[in-house]
Amino acid sequence: MTRPITGRVVPEQWRPTGAPAPRREPGTARIAVDLLGGDQAPAVVVDGALRAFADDPTLHLTLVGPAEAADAVVAAVHPARRHRLTTVLGGTAADAVAAGQADALVSAGDTAVTVLSAARALGRWPGIRRPPLAAVLPTAAGRLVLLDVGSTVDPDEETLATHARLGAAYATAVHGLAEPRVGLLTIGTEHGKGDRLRRAAARLLQDLPLNYAGLVEGSDVVLGRAADVVVTDGFTGNVLLKALEAATRPKETDETPAAVLLGVHGVVVVCHGAATGTDLAKGIAFAADLHRHRRIDVVQRGIA
Amino acid sequence: MTRPITGRVVPEQWRPTGAPAPRREPGTARIAVDLLGGDQAPAVVVDGALRAFADDPTLHLTLVGPAEAADAVVAAVHPARRHRLTTVLGGTAADAVAAGQADALVSAGDTAVTVLSAARALGRWPGIRRPPLAAVLPTAAGRLVLLDVGSTVDPDEETLATHARLGAAYATAVHGLAEPRVGLLTIGTEHGKGDRLRRAAARLLQDLPLNYAGLVEGSDVVLGRAADVVVTDGFTGNVLLKALEAATRPKETDETPAAVLLGVHGVVVVCHGAATGTDLAKGIAFAADLHRHRRIDVVQRGIA
Repeated sequence: MTRPITGRVVPEQWRPTGAPAPRREPGTARIAVDLLGGDQAPAVVVDGALRAFADDPTLHLTLVGPAEAADAVVAAVHPARRHRLTTVLGGTAADAVAAGQADALVSAGDTAVTVLSAARALGRWPGIRRPPLAAVLPTAAGRLVLLDVGSTVDPDEETLATHARLGAAYATAVHGLAEPRVGLLTIGTEHGKGDRLRRAAARLLQDLPLNYAGLVEGSDVVLGRAADVVVTDGFTGNVLLKALEAATRPKETDETPAAVLLGVHGVVVVCHGAATGTDLAKGIAFAADLHRHRRIDVVQRGIA
Repeated sequence: MTRPITGRVVPEQWRPTGAPAPRREPGTARIAVDLLGGDQAPAVVVDGALRAFADDPTLHLTLVGPAEAADAVVAAVHPARRHRLTTVLGGTAADAVAAGQADALVSAGDTAVTVLSAARALGRWPGIRRPPLAAVLPTAAGRLVLLDVGSTVDPDEETLATHARLGAAYATAVHGLAEPRVGLLTIGTEHGKGDRLRRAAARLLQDLPLNYAGLVEGSDVVLGRAADVVVTDGFTGNVLLKALEAATRPKETDETPAAVLLGVHGVVVVCHGAATGTDLAKGIAFAADLHRHRRIDVVQRGIA
């Protein structure tokens, strides 16, 4: 997928001449949208951006991508509301956040590319080498944080332990759980069950200052009774997330079909490549919520 | 879980004095049932055995485990039908099959223990070092063979390639597919997606004499459009299977909630530890079907 780099240009016709670029205001959220991210990009992203924009009268969108796609969004917006749109023709959505042109980013593009560009442009938190992607799943018992869902496919046990702390901090900051139960995903709940990675990680997790709930199984990710946070490698997490999305999609849920990157200085929401316009709109609204409530800052303070 | 070893005794009161032990007859199937296997054993196993027995008038059961549990089955069976029950108080269900006391075995016990005891007692096929467990999943597009679902948690790429061949042979022998499409489970369908193991396995799979369908994702295991057989490591497969069972259980399906061991000389069906009596009855019926149609022999010929 090639992305034309034509410099950071905000065409004059899309905002009043001389008007300042949108600034952060109470309640507003400026979301950078990766117009070229996703299997059906840019059409689906344009659709999602317009849906999110229509739903939220204080939302600003920073449209990152080729002019034609940005044009399609602008053309569909009433001229009186176009001051809430900014177009950035060059660089990545993460660059736009790093440059202060947006408060958060949403992408349905290649996960590895998004994670890498976000980590580079925004910087990692101290002590975080491999920022994980966390997804929130609806369960019979409430909400469950599953991580990593695709950022790091070959982690070591130290990485899993760090991800456990990040997931617990997220469940506290976002789900309001004082002492979230953290489970390690494996293939049986008896002591020692699992592969080499899991056996090594279990030893680390039980010594961490968190509410370690021990080993959990695939069914626990669905039922939610055993843990509020489930830690796994990005390969297993991604396979599991995509399978469960396919298995439960007809039911529709309130949960956002998107994942949030933890461990970088900024709000980064990743939708999957097959996201629909509705999915992307939910992802944008999710990013706006994370920004408005400074939730990622709270997560960082939680693990500091 | 301790298993009393009291020798191979068939108490006289449970079959007519002097009557021969049940022999293979056309249509009959003698299934060894591991009475101590499963989280709720032996109660659930007794329940499952009785359900299967009631459903199938030509079924013989070889009850492997402690006398009290076997007694419970025998006591619940009409005396006129007790000649279809045999009790074996010592050894494993695999030992009973190896000794000719049964044609197939069903266990909901510890998977690793069952696989190991079956491989030892029955012997592996030539060229098979690590026999995989194959599960059949219902999908929107039909049936799908997922393997391995828990036998080998840290396989190398050669093992995945062997499992791909076994899965394809199973889909041909049991599902009647002449050229089943075999997919490699990973986290994206673009070339090179996945962890080290998947990248190495993809190179091997494309050179095998099978209908390699390339990389597939978690959603494909549910939707079934991309492949008839999906190959993965036993860790990911087990996590995925348990999650999907929990996610889809309320719908109830016709598929047997059990896995079959491929690559050993014999019919070995593994139910999961949380299997209900109904699940176990289905597992027993599945084992009987595999035996009656010599399906595992056909699989072996398919890969020879």
